Amino acid sequence: MKHFTSVKDIPDLKKAVETALEIKKNRFDYKHFGKNKTMVLIFFNPSLRTRLSTQKAAMNLGMNTMVMNVSEDGWQLESELGVVMDSDKPEHLKEAIPVIGKYCDVIGVRSFARFQNKEDDYAEKILNQFIDYAGVPVVSMEGATRHPLQSYADLVTIEEFKTKERPKVVLTWAPHPRALPQAVANSFVEWMRETDYELVVTHPEGYELAPEFMGDVKVEYDQKKAFENADFIYAKNWASYTNYGQILSKDFGWTVNEEKMALTSNGKFMHCLPVRRNVVVSDDVLDSSSSIVVEQAANREITAQAVLKMILEETS
Amino acid sequence: MKHFTSVKDIPDLKKAVETALEIKKNRFDYKHFGKNKTMVLIFFNPSLRTRLSTQKAAMNLGMNTMVMNVSEDGWQLESELGVVMDSDKPEHLKEAIPVIGKYCDVIGVRSFARFQNKEDDYAEKILNQFIDYAGVPVVSMEGATRHPLQSYADLVTIEEFKTKERPKVVLTWAPHPRALPQAVANSFVEWMRETDYELVVTHPEGYELAPEFMGDVKVEYDQKKAFENADFIYAKNWASYTNYGQILSKDFGWTVNEEKMALTSNGKFMHCLPVRRNVVVSDDVLDSSSSIVVEQAANREITAQAVLKMILEETS
Amino acid sequence: MKHFTSVKDIPDLKKAVETALEIKKNRFDYKHFGKNKTMVLIFFNPSLRTRLSTQKAAMNLGMNTMVMNVSEDGWQLESELGVVMDSDKPEHLKEAIPVIGKYCDVIGVRSFARFQNKEDDYAEKILNQFIDYAGVPVVSMEGATRHPLQSYADLVTIEEFKTKERPKVVLTWAPHPRALPQAVANSFVEWMRETDYELVVTHPEGYELAPEFMGDVKVEYDQKKAFENADFIYAKNWASYTNYGQILSKDFGWTVNEEKMALTSNGKFMHCLPVRRNVVVSDDVLDSSSSIVVEQAANREITAQAVLKMILEETS
Repeated sequence: MKHFTSVKDIPDLKKAVETALEIKKNRFDYKHFGKNKTMVLIFFNPSLRTRLSTQKAAMNLGMNTMVMNVSEDGWQLESELGVVMDSDKPEHLKEAIPVIGKYCDVIGVRSFARFQNKEDDYAEKILNQFIDYAGVPVVSMEGATRHPLQSYADLVTIEEFKTKERPKVVLTWAPHPRALPQAVANSFVEWMRETDYELVVTHPEGYELAPEFMGDVKVEYDQKKAFENADFIYAKNWASYTNYGQILSKDFGWTVNEEKMALTSNGKFMHCLPVRRNVVVSDDVLDSSSSIVVEQAANREITAQAVLKMILEETS
Repeated sequence: MKHFTSVKDIPDLKKAVETALEIKKNRFDYKHFGKNKTMVLIFFNPSLRTRLSTQKAAMNLGMNTMVMNVSEDGWQLESELGVVMDSDKPEHLKEAIPVIGKYCDVIGVRSFARFQNKEDDYAEKILNQFIDYAGVPVVSMEGATRHPLQSYADLVTIEEFKTKERPKVVLTWAPHPRALPQAVANSFVEWMRETDYELVVTHPEGYELAPEFMGDVKVEYDQKKAFENADFIYAKNWASYTNYGQILSKDFGWTVNEEKMALTSNGKFMHCLPVRRNVVVSDDVLDSSSSIVVEQAANREITAQAVLKMILEETS
Repeated sequence: MKHFTSVKDIPDLKKAVETALEIKKNRFDYKHFGKNKTMVLIFFNPSLRTRLSTQKAAMNLGMNTMVMNVSEDGWQLESELGVVMDSDKPEHLKEAIPVIGKYCDVIGVRSFARFQNKEDDYAEKILNQFIDYAGVPVVSMEGATRHPLQSYADLVTIEEFKTKERPKVVLTWAPHPRALPQAVANSFVEWMRETDYELVVTHPEGYELAPEFMGDVKVEYDQKKAFENADFIYAKNWASYTNYGQILSKDFGWTVNEEKMALTSNGKFMHCLPVRRNVVVSDDVLDSSSSIVVEQAANREITAQAVLKMILEETS
């Protein structure tokens, strides 16, 4: 693996799950991979799980890590080409990225959708400049349209908790006070489509995900119907793709609660976190034994380590 | 030791002092304790000494460290139970804490008194949620009511500098422009009470510390009288406990100066730092040989290492 | 080497270049130097290259590192002596510095010119307090008047790219929307004067550098004339020294472009970065093969490692 920005970078998904589960058994058995190797983690946006789990993963492999909140620790970065840089951004990505690449062996970068321009976001303008200029492998720690480290952990978590060969997995939209990117939802769908699970997506009308992610995945606009016999409920808010970045609904009728979970087949509740309690999901679901959000988050360390190991194997 | 939040977590205080002094002689002799262990340091508030000394202590033990200013690097965290999380805090401690616990072996957390509600502060609502949800040992890097890593260093410093078996130790209130928590003062009294030192607390009326910390410790409202024949003067400002969080006095008559130090028995001056010069204490005292504030701060590394070593011994 | 704040701390510049080039060949051959050693990096100002390259250099040597943005992570620091500290700065450098020194073996500090007072800046009031109080070696990561880690990397880069024994090196002022310190320019001149290169400085009138840095270095007010037959063009903006901290010109006629580079002897373009594209230098120059700004930045790691190695050799 050279870069890791989507499921397409994984050559064999079944094997990738096995690798992760193998690492989970003894995460300190691979320290030689990271000897004299350094990972820089660049954050354009806040992060708790990704920040800690990716650092931890790198350290498990014996790597050194350096972490930057790039705009606060360093300089505001210009991303547009050809501009006269006479305003608030003193440095261009075209210099910053290759320089960072000179100081490390792998770059992790988080750069959320900015919601200013759908084309720019869906072209992954920031992430792709990292790939173009870094000179070293780049790991997406959530881009504008995907969150592959999350989805890989989601997949491993489902494999660990599934009780039947081909579980029914439901991605449900849920309300939220802020406009959130589609990255987690897009990415989850993209990864699930690579499995043989039964995948259903449910959301209010107007919240259709981008066609390139959805393909022919079934949309069920009736949330309760979607929940029937589900083995996994994956809740997530996202802002509208068609009315790009807009909030069309804050309907608490879409909040996941015990009554809805009762429709499932003893279904497990998943969320990428952070999650707003009693908005996205009720306290009683999150505090019940059907919630596996902490186990899911714990797997972030494992899959980040698997990704870094695959990259180090390729480059060493 | 499972958690470290107060002197009560130390099984044998005499032995704890010996352990610290032993570590101070060769702090790099204990590297095997921290092999493949990681400490996460979570800051809700600013920190210089605690941040650096605790990291250094962990690294001395061979541990990896990850540091987060949680609200700036990650997400604003909700601490109340049962709320509808539709405002500015996107994540709840109830998810954040167990997730952090999954990525490490020890959590250090700093969460000052907020002065919004005495009951909440004195119930250590934040710190106790860490203990409840972390799943790994928790070290207080200053809670709402105690600063035990500081007090442990204070004790070791007094043991190093004392010239008689049972020194007279005076905790004196001093003026300050801001309302500060009682944590350092409470904690200092709590630790001193476990020794056989002669302890005197002096402050203006209205600044009485909480009874559960003071017990039957002698209060002397006349600062100069308190200073007579003292071996150690420990200065610290705190806001009122009874008129909770209020500043009742900014009287510079309480500033520690050379004239007052002359009343002591060649007494040493201590302060936890940061200290406001010429407000809490005069330049001439801080710049004199009687000030041991830097040596005291240096012991923060040693006692943090002692605490982490005790925790790692327990859990390994 | 005890401290590193200027070229004067380098005993033998020729040997220092050799040391750097030796390190560059195998930067992981010196790990024993940093065993059980810790570097603290203190930033009063933003940093990308210095932050990452100096950490990387320390880690290459096997050191542990701790990084602080001192005012955000810790406390606002007072630097004036004798003040009554009753306003917004709760800690004095006189306490903070020796305490930091207790937790590490080397301190790196960045403290830019503040432009409030020429005498204070040119007396290096902050940096010199670090040297006075730290108790351990201090490395300037850019002071008010010099940026020696940068200049050392500049020198090594010129040595790598020069095609004749005694190249012509031109330092050219360039326009910028903000008032920038003279540190990089001062320091570059100071280091170049220790070589036998032909050095020319070009800038609009009013931008003369401080006489103690310039000595008898040739100033050529006609930028195009200065560029003739140059082997290296080093561009940098700085605010006026005589009209201290003021912007006297934003004349884009001083922007470095291809037309001007054509006057050189196949000259290489250098800049310390961050650089404002199409203000300081045109896109076509930066994107051409004559630009060596990334290679120059990459050498920051190497020369920082050389400096730290020299310091560790001295102190171990």
